[in-house]
Amino acid sequence: MEFNFANRISYLTASEIREILKITEQREIISFAGGLPAPELFPVEEIKKVSQIVLEEEGTKVLQYSTTEGYLPLREWIADRMNSRLGTKLLPDHIILTHGSQQGLDLSGKVFLDEGDIVLCESPTYLAAISAFKAYGCRFLEVPTDDDGMLPDELEYILENTPRVKMIYVIPDFQNPTGRTWSLDRRKKLVDLAMKHKVMVIEDNPYGELRFEGETLPSFQSFDQTGCVVFLGTFSKIFCPGYRIGWVAGDPRVIEKYAIVKQATDLQCNTLAQREIAKFLEMYNIEDHIDKIREVYRKRRDLTVHTMESEFPAGVTFTRPQGGLFSWVELPAQVNARDVLERSLERNVAFVPGGPFFPNGSNENTLRINFSNMPEDRIVIGLHSLAEVLREFI
Amino acid sequence: MEFNFANRISYLTASEIREILKITEQREIISFAGGLPAPELFPVEEIKKVSQIVLEEEGTKVLQYSTTEGYLPLREWIADRMNSRLGTKLLPDHIILTHGSQQGLDLSGKVFLDEGDIVLCESPTYLAAISAFKAYGCRFLEVPTDDDGMLPDELEYILENTPRVKMIYVIPDFQNPTGRTWSLDRRKKLVDLAMKHKVMVIEDNPYGELRFEGETLPSFQSFDQTGCVVFLGTFSKIFCPGYRIGWVAGDPRVIEKYAIVKQATDLQCNTLAQREIAKFLEMYNIEDHIDKIREVYRKRRDLTVHTMESEFPAGVTFTRPQGGLFSWVELPAQVNARDVLERSLERNVAFVPGGPFFPNGSNENTLRINFSNMPEDRIVIGLHSLAEVLREFI
Repeated sequence: MEFNFANRISYLTASEIREILKITEQREIISFAGGLPAPELFPVEEIKKVSQIVLEEEGTKVLQYSTTEGYLPLREWIADRMNSRLGTKLLPDHIILTHGSQQGLDLSGKVFLDEGDIVLCESPTYLAAISAFKAYGCRFLEVPTDDDGMLPDELEYILENTPRVKMIYVIPDFQNPTGRTWSLDRRKKLVDLAMKHKVMVIEDNPYGELRFEGETLPSFQSFDQTGCVVFLGTFSKIFCPGYRIGWVAGDPRVIEKYAIVKQATDLQCNTLAQREIAKFLEMYNIEDHIDKIREVYRKRRDLTVHTMESEFPAGVTFTRPQGGLFSWVELPAQVNARDVLERSLERNVAFVPGGPFFPNGSNENTLRINFSNMPEDRIVIGLHSLAEVLREFI
Repeated sequence: MEFNFANRISYLTASEIREILKITEQREIISFAGGLPAPELFPVEEIKKVSQIVLEEEGTKVLQYSTTEGYLPLREWIADRMNSRLGTKLLPDHIILTHGSQQGLDLSGKVFLDEGDIVLCESPTYLAAISAFKAYGCRFLEVPTDDDGMLPDELEYILENTPRVKMIYVIPDFQNPTGRTWSLDRRKKLVDLAMKHKVMVIEDNPYGELRFEGETLPSFQSFDQTGCVVFLGTFSKIFCPGYRIGWVAGDPRVIEKYAIVKQATDLQCNTLAQREIAKFLEMYNIEDHIDKIREVYRKRRDLTVHTMESEFPAGVTFTRPQGGLFSWVELPAQVNARDVLERSLERNVAFVPGGPFFPNGSNENTLRINFSNMPEDRIVIGLHSLAEVLREFI
């Protein structure tokens, strides 16, 4: 039969990244494509201990249904850590656990977006946020953005002249895909504008803990006096993504709606995963673990930037992020990164073309390089091959 | 600030069950309210072994991101089991894993429903399906239903005379909340009508494995020749709900859309949970485990029905389900089950009033009794108290 799908299905296409990742799974490829953590850093032995203890102590409870908001001790830990790192003043009631921060995005769309609403975003922005929000029929307006974040004058002009702006979506630290970090001043200005115009801010911060140098900056939420900032966090980048545990932090009147919506969506997060993470945080020092991750990724970032500097042809520019997982590459205007990818896959090297990170298209001469997932020798070999391919185009 | 939530938020209210469950958590209460499995039956020791083995064998893989569709060996097992039990002819490509079958409901709404579409449902029906679908702006039409399922003539009349019917939602076995099971003949007739009218059928079957007597009936999907039936299954009732692993089975052209939508919603299910369940199924005989559950629930069903028979006042009727978790109670028309609940909570006994299971209201003289979660002595004490309360009203 001809299926009569919902209209939203026509806005959603299979993610290009996912298709590229499928190729990288099929054969021995050097991949700068995904946003995958380095698996060799997962604390497997510790998790083995933790899982036994959790099952011994409360086996029946950790396998049963539990509350939609999530395990209280874990929400307490999250509130405490955010308050001490990011200048927020959160209580556990301000937190709901989600199925990774991707679900934080989906629930944000579900709670706030009606068809035809406008979401303001950085240019470029995280492509899976585009699909999460598009499922609710919104349109995107890209706010001109430089290395310090959105340009405040441009943002203000848009807010003053555009009806139906419902939400501003930002990734403050080591942005996906550019690796850029918002300056302190721009953070304050954005929140001031959002409060004034009564627009919600979705502050998506999966990478903030992975800072290699410089100082941690306060979160947008720390400047919020009206409840307009919703913060999304995750254990995927500082612990293990396979657990699918993230969180949303916000005004309790907002979090209450997220809980109602999450209940209708999937009832709750995996009980065992919540308990195992909480037990890990109780038994081990996550700071040491994060330090280890930071150290490895910092080296890979250095090597990536250094190799691109010495091997990429003139006319190619790229960011040198202070943390996170990604560097952003701009090719000369006439070069299409999709063509480069095709040639590069022939040499068993993958990356993600930058076009899809622009919700309204354009900028096909850009690409994203992930440096967290490949060991150092493969980074060098892979970038060497990519440089050769680039020289064929430039 | 005054928050400007999406319109859909006004259709969704905090679930009454959830509020009642919160009360039951706060004090020592005999609860017939939730749909919780008996926790003493969870195979804790086996899961301890399984989790160690999975982490030893492939520690880094099971903690990493994985595919949206889910772990292939688990999807193979699901296809094989459905084919042998339910008369389907599924391949692993026809299956996608979901975050419990509640997410199967949510994704079905997201893939198929536009605002104003009509969902046909049994009367009464599962109240969390009502909220899952309502989030996509649909309306419900309750099809007159008797002990064998929807009345085919009524269903046909509605299909012929109602524009915008997009979906028929049914719970074939031991329905929630009534405990009723569709007859073979009605199953065939419904699928014939759905194929003729090109309407999707969502066959929600979380309880089918928990049959205490009589023969397993073929699934609606086994009669489907056009791809119109989507089947929702779960490990929550035959294994452990805390894992949040369920599945959707359907035509691959449909499953492909579910995968695109799931990716935008939460990327994938918990990797570790998928691997642990697959390993459990490889190492142990789930049939033995399900037999144990069936045996315990059968006794509890018998005791529940027997106690209601001997203690409930005349004028109260109830179902005697052949399996599952629930019996459905009808009080005389003038008695409101919410009033009964209030009085019954004073005696520390909880249940769920039946009204919310009717998407368009009415039937406030009904209530749902869960018999799977409480041990036998507490079932007797609880129903004894409830009978006393009922005698005050009747």
